[in-house]
Order: sequence, then C-alpha cells, then structure tokens
Amino acid sequence: MTQTPIGVAVVGAGYWGPNLVRNFQATSSFRLRWLCDLDVERAQKVLGPYSTVQVSADLDAVLADPEVQAVAIATPAGTHLPIAMKALRAGKHVLVEKPLAATFDEGLQLVEEADRRGLTLMCDHTYCYTPAVLRIRELLHAGELGELHFLDSVRINLGLVQRDIDVVWDLAPHDLSILDFVLPEGVHPISVAAHGADGIGAGRACVAYLTLELNTGAIAHIHVNWLSPVKIRTAIFGGSKKTLVWDDLNPSQRVSIYNRGVDVATSDEIGDEQRRDMLISYRSGDMVAPALNEREALRTMVEEYARAITTGEPALTDGRAGLRVLEILQAASRSLAEGGTTIKLDEGHMA
Amino acid sequence: MTQTPIGVAVVGAGYWGPNLVRNFQATSSFRLRWLCDLDVERAQKVLGPYSTVQVSADLDAVLADPEVQAVAIATPAGTHLPIAMKALRAGKHVLVEKPLAATFDEGLQLVEEADRRGLTLMCDHTYCYTPAVLRIRELLHAGELGELHFLDSVRINLGLVQRDIDVVWDLAPHDLSILDFVLPEGVHPISVAAHGADGIGAGRACVAYLTLELNTGAIAHIHVNWLSPVKIRTAIFGGSKKTLVWDDLNPSQRVSIYNRGVDVATSDEIGDEQRRDMLISYRSGDMVAPALNEREALRTMVEEYARAITTGEPALTDGRAGLRVLEILQAASRSLAEGGTTIKLDEGHMA
Amino acid sequence: MTQTPIGVAVVGAGYWGPNLVRNFQATSSFRLRWLCDLDVERAQKVLGPYSTVQVSADLDAVLADPEVQAVAIATPAGTHLPIAMKALRAGKHVLVEKPLAATFDEGLQLVEEADRRGLTLMCDHTYCYTPAVLRIRELLHAGELGELHFLDSVRINLGLVQRDIDVVWDLAPHDLSILDFVLPEGVHPISVAAHGADGIGAGRACVAYLTLELNTGAIAHIHVNWLSPVKIRTAIFGGSKKTLVWDDLNPSQRVSIYNRGVDVATSDEIGDEQRRDMLISYRSGDMVAPALNEREALRTMVEEYARAITTGEPALTDGRAGLRVLEILQAASRSLAEGGTTIKLDEGHMA
Amino acid sequence: MTQTPIGVAVVGAGYWGPNLVRNFQATSSFRLRWLCDLDVERAQKVLGPYSTVQVSADLDAVLADPEVQAVAIATPAGTHLPIAMKALRAGKHVLVEKPLAATFDEGLQLVEEADRRGLTLMCDHTYCYTPAVLRIRELLHAGELGELHFLDSVRINLGLVQRDIDVVWDLAPHDLSILDFVLPEGVHPISVAAHGADGIGAGRACVAYLTLELNTGAIAHIHVNWLSPVKIRTAIFGGSKKTLVWDDLNPSQRVSIYNRGVDVATSDEIGDEQRRDMLISYRSGDMVAPALNEREALRTMVEEYARAITTGEPALTDGRAGLRVLEILQAASRSLAEGGTTIKLDEGHMA
Repeated sequence: MTQTPIGVAVVGAGYWGPNLVRNFQATSSFRLRWLCDLDVERAQKVLGPYSTVQVSADLDAVLADPEVQAVAIATPAGTHLPIAMKALRAGKHVLVEKPLAATFDEGLQLVEEADRRGLTLMCDHTYCYTPAVLRIRELLHAGELGELHFLDSVRINLGLVQRDIDVVWDLAPHDLSILDFVLPEGVHPISVAAHGADGIGAGRACVAYLTLELNTGAIAHIHVNWLSPVKIRTAIFGGSKKTLVWDDLNPSQRVSIYNRGVDVATSDEIGDEQRRDMLISYRSGDMVAPALNEREALRTMVEEYARAITTGEPALTDGRAGLRVLEILQAASRSLAEGGTTIKLDEGHMA
Repeated sequence: MTQTPIGVAVVGAGYWGPNLVRNFQATSSFRLRWLCDLDVERAQKVLGPYSTVQVSADLDAVLADPEVQAVAIATPAGTHLPIAMKALRAGKHVLVEKPLAATFDEGLQLVEEADRRGLTLMCDHTYCYTPAVLRIRELLHAGELGELHFLDSVRINLGLVQRDIDVVWDLAPHDLSILDFVLPEGVHPISVAAHGADGIGAGRACVAYLTLELNTGAIAHIHVNWLSPVKIRTAIFGGSKKTLVWDDLNPSQRVSIYNRGVDVATSDEIGDEQRRDMLISYRSGDMVAPALNEREALRTMVEEYARAITTGEPALTDGRAGLRVLEILQAASRSLAEGGTTIKLDEGHMA
Repeated sequence: MTQTPIGVAVVGAGYWGPNLVRNFQATSSFRLRWLCDLDVERAQKVLGPYSTVQVSADLDAVLADPEVQAVAIATPAGTHLPIAMKALRAGKHVLVEKPLAATFDEGLQLVEEADRRGLTLMCDHTYCYTPAVLRIRELLHAGELGELHFLDSVRINLGLVQRDIDVVWDLAPHDLSILDFVLPEGVHPISVAAHGADGIGAGRACVAYLTLELNTGAIAHIHVNWLSPVKIRTAIFGGSKKTLVWDDLNPSQRVSIYNRGVDVATSDEIGDEQRRDMLISYRSGDMVAPALNEREALRTMVEEYARAITTGEPALTDGRAGLRVLEILQAASRSLAEGGTTIKLDEGHMA
Repeated sequence: MTQTPIGVAVVGAGYWGPNLVRNFQATSSFRLRWLCDLDVERAQKVLGPYSTVQVSADLDAVLADPEVQAVAIATPAGTHLPIAMKALRAGKHVLVEKPLAATFDEGLQLVEEADRRGLTLMCDHTYCYTPAVLRIRELLHAGELGELHFLDSVRINLGLVQRDIDVVWDLAPHDLSILDFVLPEGVHPISVAAHGADGIGAGRACVAYLTLELNTGAIAHIHVNWLSPVKIRTAIFGGSKKTLVWDDLNPSQRVSIYNRGVDVATSDEIGDEQRRDMLISYRSGDMVAPALNEREALRTMVEEYARAITTGEPALTDGRAGLRVLEILQAASRSLAEGGTTIKLDEGHMA
C-alpha cells in the first residue's frame, strides 16, 4: 500500500493498550502519533526509552492534532462513551476495545453519532480476526458444516478478578462476538439465560454459564470462569454435516473438522417411534485439521480498521456488532440477577 | 475372605450385563449362578461356549433357586421396579444399574420394600468406585480442598442416541451420583435448572446443561452431550484451598491437585470496595498428581455389594443415594420441559 | 465361517497367555481345548472357576490329544525351541509369542522343521495387527507417503525389569516387527548400531537406542526404555510425500497424516550450491486423521493364524518374519557389547 | 539498579538479532546504541520507523563509538571469529550467539583473547536461562533427583534447512549447552557417537541422533530433526531418586517430577542372580509439577551478561561453556562422517 499512512492515537496504556501500540507500529497503513494516558509515566514506559512516539495526558490536545485521523481506545468500559464521543465529535474514526460501551444505550449513542458523521466506528473483537475464527466463519457461511446444531464454548483460566465488572462482562464478549461473527445471515440468538456464582466472596460472579437459544432451535452455551487452575479455550461447533473443534491453546492443531456425527433420516411411510429407531445412523469418518497461518489476530484487526477507514465500508466488527454483543451481555446480567430466568432478546430493535 | 461365596444372578445380558458377569466371576466373594435374559441366545453368547454358568429366560425360576441370595439387575430403567420388587419379595439382595428406577416414586417403593425386609438395596453408581472419585471424596471429606466453590463436569462423546431416554437420563446420573458421593455431610443441592436441545430431530434432548445450586451457595454444572465428535470426561472441583481436576481419559494423570487460586481476605477496618481491591491475592503454587492404583471400578463396586450384604450396613451407594439422584433427574426433566426454570429440590423428604 | 473350529492349546499361563486364552475363546475359528502350564494352579486361575477348558502340566498329554491341531506358545523365549519343536514334530501348527526363539539359529531350526512338515509357523507380532499398523502398511505399500526417509520409534515406560533379557530383547521386537511388516518389497535394513546403559545396576541394558540403515539410505531409529516414568509409544514415518505420526496411546487420534515437509527439487542447469538454495520448498498442508476401527489386535492376529492354517499360505507374520527380527536383535546385542559398532546384516541368508 | 546502563551494539539483523534488540531495549542494565548489519535497510526494518537507535553497516565505526562497551553478535557462525575478535581487540565485552564459533580452534582463540584482555566473553545459550532449565540445574546440583542415569532429549520440528550447517550444528547446541549447564561438578561427557541421514537430498544431515557417554556411566541421547511435521521439545532426566520430564511446549506444565522408578538394592550376603531378583523394587509415587514463572529466557540471559560485565565474574554460560559444546559438535561431525564411530572427548584440554 503506497497510500499515506493514517495518523492514529492510542488512548489507554493499561493492559491492552500496549498490544495496540505494537500492532499499529507494525503496519504501514498507520502512523502512530500519540499514546495518551492520564498516567504519562506509564505511557512512556509502554513506549520504552527508544521511541519517537509522543506521550500525553491531555486527550483534547491529542484530538486537536490534525495529523490524528483515527483513535483507538483501550480504557475501562465505563469511560468508552465520553472518550469515544469526544473523538467522534472531533471528527476522528474510532476503534474501541470490547465491550463497545458500559451499556447498550451508551453503545447506541456511539453508533448513532458515528453514523451521523459518516465516521468509522469499530469494535476490537480481537478473536474474530484469528485465522481459526476467520476459517470457521468461512466454513459456516459456505455451509460446509451444515446447519449449526450446537455451540459449546469454554473460556476458563485463573484470571484477574476485575473490580468493576463480573466474569460475564470480562470474558463472554469474546465468545459472543465470535458467535455473532460466524453465524450465517439470518441466524441469531433469541434468548439468553445465565447462571453464576461468586464462591470466593469477590462481590461479583467469578464463574458463569450462559445458554443462548438461536432462532433455528440451536443452542449456544458459554462457560466463563476466573477460578480455574487450568486454562481451557475450546469451542465445539456442532453442525448437521460436520463438527468443528477449535482449541485455541493447541498451536499445532487449532482447528479439527470431524466427519463424525449422528444422522436422523425422516420418512413418512412408517410410524413415529419406529422411524426414529430405524433411521438413526452414525457417521464415523476422517478428521481433517486444516493448515492455518499463524498471523497475529490484532494485526489483522488493525488492518481491517484501515480498510474500513479507507473505503468507508463498515468494519467486519463494526459498532453494530458491538451493540449486538452488548444487548446479550445486558440480558445475561438481568438473568443472572433473577436467578437464571430466560430473557428474550429484542430481535427487531437494531434494524 | 474364606467365607462361602454369595450366590448371585445377573439379570440382563445387554450393554452393561456382560461387565457385571465378568466382575462377579472375578471375585471370590460371589459365585455367579445364572445369567438371566429374555433372549437366552444373547445370554449364552455373553457367557461364551466355555462357561459353566447357567442361562435362563425365566426370572421366577432363577429367583426360586435357593443358591441365589443376591441379584444384579442390568435391564432398561423402566423394568427396574417390577424385577427388583420381585427379587426383594423373593428375599434376595438387589443391586440395580443406574438409574435406580424410572421415577422417584418407583425408586421409593424399592427403598421402602428393602427396608421392610432388611435386605440390601444398592445402586450401581460405577464411577463412584473409580480410584479417582474415591480419592476426591476422601480429599473433600477431609477438607483438603477447603470448601467446594464450584464443580464443572463435562461428559461428552459421540454416544448412542437412546430411544427411551434423553441425554440427561442417560449420562447425568454419572455426574449426579459422583456429586452426591463426594459432598461432605451437610452439603447438598437445593435447586436445578436444565437447558437442552435436540438439534438432529431425535425426539429428545441430545445436548443438555444442568446447573445446580448447593445449600452453601456453590454451583455445580454438568454438560452432557451425545453429539460431540471428541470424547471429554473432565471435572473440575474448585475448592477454597485447592482445586482438583479429574480427567478420566488421561490414564497417566487422572487427578491433578492445583495449589492455585484466588483468595479474598476479609477485614472490618476498611471500606467495602477498598477492602476487596486490597485483599485479593493469587496463589500460584505447585501441582501434585497423586499416584492412584488402576483398579477397575466395577470390581470395587461388586465388593462393596458383598460387604453390604455380609455386614448388613448400607452400601456406599445405597438405594437412598439412588433416590437422591432420581429426584434431581426428575426436577431436571421438569426444568427442561419448562425452558430452563429453576426447580427447587425438596430437601426434607428423604429424612 | 461354518467350518469346524480348529482345536487349539495354549502353552504358558504367565503374562501373555491369558490374552491368547481370551482371544481364542472369542473367535469361532478356534476351539480352545487346553491351557498348559507347569503350574496348573496358575493355569486354573487364569481360566477362572467357571471354565470348561482343560488344564494340564503335561505338554505331551496335550500334544497327544487328536482334537488339538494347533498350539500357541507364550513361555519365556529360552523355551520356545524345545516346546515348538515338540509341537511341530507332533504335527501341530505353531504360533509363538515374540521373539520367535532365543537365537537366530534356534529360530531357523523351527522355520526349517515347519517347512519340512508343511505346517504353519507363525510369530505373534501383535502390533502388526493393530488397525493403525495395518493402515500404515497399506499406505506405504501403495506409495501414499512416498519413499520412506526416516522412521523414529519411541517405546518407553516404567517397565518390568526382566531377569533373563535386556530392554532391547524385551521391547524392540515390537518396533522391529512393525518395521519389517510395513516396508514395501525390496526395502530392508542393512545394518544396525546399538547404544545402551544400565543406570540402575540391573545387570543388563535398561535404556537403549537402535539405529538401522536401510538399503535405500533411509534411517530407522528405535528408543526402548524401562525407566521412563512417562509412557510414550509414538512412531513417526517420514516419507517423501507425506509424514505419518502414530501415537498408540491416543485412542481418539492414533494416526495423523501430515501433508507437511521439505522438498528439494533437482535441476541440471545450475550449480550445486545455488540449486539447493533455490529449489528447497516447504509444504504446509492439511493433516488428516483417518477413521480407524478399534478392533483388538490380538483378535485379528488369532484370525490370521486360522487363515494361515486353513489355506496353507504363510501368515503375514510367519516364521521368516520372526527370523528377520531375530537377526537384527542378535546384531544389536553384538553392537551393544562392542560399544556401538555398526553391524552389517546378512541380506542374503534368508533367500 | 541505579548504575549507568552499559552501552551495547547488536551485530546482525537476521533471524536472532531482533530478539536481542528487543531484550536489550527492555532492560535498564543496557542502553542499546546501534544495530549493525551489512544490509542497513534490513536493520532499519527490524527497529521500525519509531526508533531512536542508530543503524550502521560499518562495524568499525560502531566499535569506534566510546559509548559502546559491549557487543552482541548474531551473525552466521562462520563470521563469529573475525567479528568477535575485532570487538575484543577494540576492548569491548562480547556476547556471541550459539555456537561460539565455527570450530573449536576458532572458539579457543576467542576465549584466550578475552582472557588476555580481561573482557567478558559469553555465549548466548538461551535455553539455559529458561525457568525450567534453571530449575533443573538447581535440582540436579542439589541432588534432589539423585544421580543422573539417563538424559533423553528430543528437539524436532519442520525446520528451516540451513544451507551452511547440518541439523546437528543447528539444533544440538541447545541440548548440549543444557546438558553442560545442568550437570553437577565432576560429571561430564567422555564420548559421542552420531548417526544421521539426509533423506531429502539436501546435501547435509537433516535427521540425527547423538549418543553421549558420561564419566559416570550415564547415557545422554539427543534427537534433532528438521523433517518432523510435529514439533516436540521434550527431555527426560532420569535420576536415581526421581525422574524429571521437561516439555517445553506445554506452558501449563513444563516440568513434571515423578517419584516413580526402579530401585535395585545391593546385598553382599546372597548370590548375584538371586540378589537382583529379590532386590528390584518399583516406586510408584506422586508427581509434582512445580510452579515456574514465565520469564523470557533471553531477558534473563541479557541480565546475566550485564552481571558478568559489571562484576568481572564469568557468565554462567561463558566462553568455556561455548568451547565445551564446540568440542562435542566437532566430535559428532567426525562420528557422522565415519558412520557412527564412537569418538572420545579430550577431558583434559580445557583445564
């Protein structure tokens, strides 16, 4: 790309900011201008003693820089609305770390503002840009797994107990954004129920289970857990034709596609019970582990941000995708508070 | 043991019966007299052409044999009540394959009949007798893991789609009986919610998730699945002191005990929010995988049956344990039918 | 098969005998007549209290039984020659546990005697009959892996330190018989070097490494070890087209075929060094794990014994295969004694 | 550390140089002054567009910079002698990527020159600085594993076929430097034999096996391989008390210490054969996986370089360690050329 690189500022030098800094620096699509954090010392430490990138605690000054066309926000969710809104109003494109905002309504304000101004609003749903998830999306969209019957996603680890959000808001955005990303057109969740527990007295759920029903009758289940001494990041996508297992912690075999399953044929000529007995069959075929490249997801995400800015097209994980995830998170919180009630999702309101 | 072996008859030569036959033959505590099945040819095939054990399709004749003091029933759950009742009434001790009966009320009839007659009624909760689960029970009873915060149990496989029962009744009895077995005195489930799906049109749930709340506030979650191309049998027992991972498919390291976790200390001297921030700490200690013997669970179970018969004491997994499992299964079915409603368990009724 | 079953006697009720007993009983091709062991009590214990099979300490009596047409010998290697010879001379077909005999010369006597009498002489190279090795053989014979470049086989475990043989004679027969079994026509080892150690003072090598050179220039390497606390049974078959990994301890993925590798194209038009630089390329394709059935190898082996007896054709692992393995074992022992010298194998002498 | 940072220049911006650049920048002990490479564009690309570090193709100019006190060389082995010699003669401390030099004699010249000038000469044996290897060293030095009986090291992968060196020189330096690093005082290799093959026609060994005999009678075996489609980096350290397994690719359990093994007690009162039979016993105790931090090895290595420079003490992996590795590599090459002959190592010449 021989285009002029897009001037970008990263806001937030905490946990995630350094990853953005590294990736913006690594691509020629962007020119990193600023790292902005209230704690400038922390910001300087992230850049190290050899960097020419500027540091500032003054967001307004950064936004006033005409060389800055785009902003990437990696601050706590509660601050996304004011910071992103300020950036949009300054005419900057905005990338926001997940979740898009602290509430659905806050997220909606951002989406509407960006729309109004014709600016790119993108949500950093990082996992969607892993080679594995990109492949899963491709396979599901092309129908190669058949119709999705179930998704079982496990994301557990000895994680940092967050002080402002529970484990659902901390970890489930990953799984929900992946689900949103890979489902083919017309398939979407219609309800969610959540169960959780706070065994250690942290004041918020540290272990939680989300069950989503899709409009096709399929089920999606997510297990998120901060208290597990073993780290598991596995998802099973059970399809009518094939079933795919994604093990994100197995670099040599991240994706395995099994031609194994149960088929139930249907027939009108025989009785109900009998039919089932006779027409259940088991497939026990080969497994294929496709070769995937090992590209860093964040690098691909950052380039998608550049593409969206340059073309004016929505990013693959645009603000609306962020909103859809927020809606489910909010419903899950309500379910959790009500002891597991099933909460319907409002399918219409994003049209 | 120099005692006379207990004469035993196995009823049912289907999937599980052969395992009972093999194990009764392998222990000197029993003398296997009969294998009884409506299909005598199948029964003969199980025994093979070299056996001196008798075969019969006539349960009454078998029960009339005075050499038979004990019976082991491995027939479909729907037949447990009539067969076991007949055996008890003939004065025989009874072992029943899980689940104890097709309903809680049927199970209760068996428990009451056995009580009335002073006979042993035992439920073959096989997994409770694996060296791993025996060790887990020991550790939890001795408080070595601390208080249980969560249990996450996964039992998934490409399994036989049963024609009479759903995946909850087929597989969850294993997890529920293990939970019942390992919980220390005074800790028990108080509610259950179940979510499931029948993606393939089998006419019953093929994938299901059970969430149990314990009276301590702990959570137990069970994932059972007939449609998974990969076989997983893993349970995580999260305790306040240590966390134990049981991977039943890893013969070289079935049990791993992690001294890793999150601790929240409590203090009265400082404010609430502040307290939590300051007093969360992370343990990141060693992991120990204890040496376990590799004894077949069914062999130990069969010997527990002998012990119960000989001493008159209740078996470790007696009829009441079977009843407790049935109560949860029944509540889970109701929850499933109602779309995931939380069903309270009646803590009193078994006293 | 509606043929009359072949009457068979098993000799030896030690470690391996019970497996033969179980498998002969399980197939209708054979009728197990006797279990013969000097220790009749041990033999009776193997059969258990419910068996109609006869027990004897008197080999002559067993061989005198006209109902016995075939014998299976599972005694220490040092006794194979006298027992097998006696059986052959009594006109019985003979199956011998690996290794065929204690020395090449003893093995040769058996092969010649069987030839003379037109009797089947088969070596129980069990692993050759696993579904995995049968598949590997098929793939190598069909050229689907291309030409074999290297074989790396690891068979380590905390094993019983044998008192009569070292780890090479105990474990390497498995790997050597597999190598012999899968190599295509015309490909064979031409030399062997062996290195070993006896760390614990057992009086014989407990850890050993064998390196074989094949007539194609390929290398085969075998690691056998009694002292490893972890059990590994993995072999990598590196081919010019594809590379296959066999992990015998991973029941869900025993065989993985990788379309990954390094290719060196050849060209006459450019200089040597340059050529290599320019024409090395890397394949990084998919991996396929073929579906394999889970049939017990010993069951297939026993049926191959029946086939050989019935048809008069040599068994897949006949006496000659046993001899080829013995030749290498003997050369390896010599190399071990000489500190790792490379010993040439006599390619001609089995013609 | 409040000391002035040591000015350092990295020479070589190829495969390994960028890692040194990153780690020198990350520690306050050093101040990175230059990245020097004949290809300045490549060097600039490594630093990226945001760096204040200087780039040069002129080694003399870099060495003339009085701010440069130390040099780190990451160029092909054949160039180590001239570059390092030039640096030493300019009075700079020198760190050299493994192997120390292209031959033992070249390495010796460097060691002698550094000695003469009282400068630090260190070899970047990176793996020695992993938390795992540091722990293994500690355990072996403290005698916690007992006496080492065997070491089995496997380092295989689909690797880049090097054009100047074979797989032994490319990969075995890792294993040999680890062995050198962990062995307690007084224990060392006395001979080496090497077997290899070049299946693909690359013009050099792509698969190789090294067998070392230690002066204690122990055996060390190394498998290096460029052609394996699966990546394995596992080493088993078999001790008389315990056995340790290091699996470098399993981040959640890199080190496992097994209290399992075979013991042979000795007794003078009974005969030899009998003694062995009676006094072999098997330990089957627990396994412990110690908690290890996840510090990057290269970071620790770089700090050890600073420590050596600052204190004047030899680095843990000093030039002499590099020489000991070179001696074995050279002997292994000779063995390979001679078809596996055992080559004695000259124990005396480094005194």
